[in-house]
Amino acid sequence: MKDLQQYTGVIDSELTKIGLPNSPVRLYDPLRYFLQIGGKRIRPILTLLSAELFGASSEKALPQALCIEVFHNFTLIHDDIMDQSPLRRNQQTVHEKWNRDVAILSGDVLMIKAYQLLGDIEAKLLPPVFDLFNNTAIEVCEGQQMDMDFEERSDVSIDEYIEMIRLKTSVLLGCALEIGAIVAEASDKNRKEIYTFGQHIGIAFQIQDDILDLYADPDQFGKQVGGDVIANKKTILHLTAIKHATKEQLEVMKQLQNAQDLVFKVDRTRRLFNQLEVRSICEARMQEHYGIAMASLAKINIDESKKEALIGLAAFLMNREV
Amino acid sequence: MKDLQQYTGVIDSELTKIGLPNSPVRLYDPLRYFLQIGGKRIRPILTLLSAELFGASSEKALPQALCIEVFHNFTLIHDDIMDQSPLRRNQQTVHEKWNRDVAILSGDVLMIKAYQLLGDIEAKLLPPVFDLFNNTAIEVCEGQQMDMDFEERSDVSIDEYIEMIRLKTSVLLGCALEIGAIVAEASDKNRKEIYTFGQHIGIAFQIQDDILDLYADPDQFGKQVGGDVIANKKTILHLTAIKHATKEQLEVMKQLQNAQDLVFKVDRTRRLFNQLEVRSICEARMQEHYGIAMASLAKINIDESKKEALIGLAAFLMNREV
Repeated sequence: MKDLQQYTGVIDSELTKIGLPNSPVRLYDPLRYFLQIGGKRIRPILTLLSAELFGASSEKALPQALCIEVFHNFTLIHDDIMDQSPLRRNQQTVHEKWNRDVAILSGDVLMIKAYQLLGDIEAKLLPPVFDLFNNTAIEVCEGQQMDMDFEERSDVSIDEYIEMIRLKTSVLLGCALEIGAIVAEASDKNRKEIYTFGQHIGIAFQIQDDILDLYADPDQFGKQVGGDVIANKKTILHLTAIKHATKEQLEVMKQLQNAQDLVFKVDRTRRLFNQLEVRSICEARMQEHYGIAMASLAKINIDESKKEALIGLAAFLMNREV
Repeated sequence: MKDLQQYTGVIDSELTKIGLPNSPVRLYDPLRYFLQIGGKRIRPILTLLSAELFGASSEKALPQALCIEVFHNFTLIHDDIMDQSPLRRNQQTVHEKWNRDVAILSGDVLMIKAYQLLGDIEAKLLPPVFDLFNNTAIEVCEGQQMDMDFEERSDVSIDEYIEMIRLKTSVLLGCALEIGAIVAEASDKNRKEIYTFGQHIGIAFQIQDDILDLYADPDQFGKQVGGDVIANKKTILHLTAIKHATKEQLEVMKQLQNAQDLVFKVDRTRRLFNQLEVRSICEARMQEHYGIAMASLAKINIDESKKEALIGLAAFLMNREV
């Protein structure tokens, strides 16, 4: 596997060349700004690695890889408005740096730009990538709506939560991989397997994200440990605790929502979750999805050595040693 | 030509069948609501008429016609947020009836739905309709941004204004027609001509819209005469007046912006515009674009009788007798 950073560098560099005009300034400046905020560029790298896995050059899948990243950035710009987030990666969000209307409209044009990049492909491959991308894009919106709906509900089940993260984030990983497979003209069976791999890696990653919020090593964790607890977010930890808690424990959880001493709030919540074995229950669920993902990858009848790059990326995402 | 209302009825009816799921309720209910608010459905009818002009059945172009109407509705939902419009066709806008976040996200999913409808086409025709639609969609966003930028500028030229309305509204009429032509496998030359026809009919229509605001017969006009004047909108009438006004007349215009007596404001503005011959200058500009449109239609080498439906629709749009 090429170094991950090499791929990230390629995507960063190619994103500056996708042909955004200068004018209207307030439409395109926000996009140039936002696209250079950066990130690990996991999604487009999945497209490149998948194309390579199935025997195509990563160059061939580059426009579609950029499409996936550009679409992802469109969702971030609009989600940031809805979530009223002032910062992303420690930089101002578009609606904060410009205004809400600018964020709506530049987000819109970025989505169309994603479609333009998608269309830079052999004519015969356009219908299948177009279908897949449309279905995925709709699912991502549905996931975002479910996420917002959950904030107002007190009866969210764990299965509903998994379905929400599947739609909001995981299907795009599956789509990124399957588009690489389509570009490489992989078989229908292999397309399905690589999609399943991506989707379940995505779910496992999101569950792990929830777990790390409370159980990460503070010295290694990039952000405040317990941030989700402080914000009373309905993570899978929270939902698991609710499911297994006694009446008394539910009452404690309820009171903790309004606790003013945040260190106490996080520590007391962790203690309660430990009593309920929340972490191991969630880790089991995470393992389940990680297992489905790896089983799908194993079913792809290709020399195992060629799968190393994707296995390495999955391990990187899951903070594991290979 | 079939009666226009027959076509409108077909579009209205087909829009109820585009397969919007029930859930998430707050994502899809707003779309069902907004799509049934209605309208004349001019854009999709252009697609159907163009397909028929070039020898295809209108049924063949139906998904693409619906795509155009669905995309148009997406732009309306997001524009209504930006313009803070509480009403559209006397019914509550989506952000007013639900909220801003619902309007953003349901607008997003509606745009993707437009792409899904676009893709319901023979594989070989997908690349050209996809290219055209992407380019048009980007232009529409650019036009909306220009429109918002103009509100904050005092030096907008008439040519810039025409360019803004070309992008914001007219290119979609051209696109609607050209997609019908592509579905009917018309020649490249005919595709270009029908696009030009639509684009210039669109510009002429928008100029007429500005003129009617101040010069319509109040008994026949559906809304308050002088609404643009009252709202201090920079219409082509306003920009033309500014261009030709003396210093003293400019001063009068400036004072009228803050006039409290609205009947006086509209009447005094009309009197000033009359002195400057604003109406006839704008009508000449409108005629110019109408002329380009009709000349393009004339260049299409098809039995004139087949053009009657489109000529009739253009006449209807321009409130003319054929």
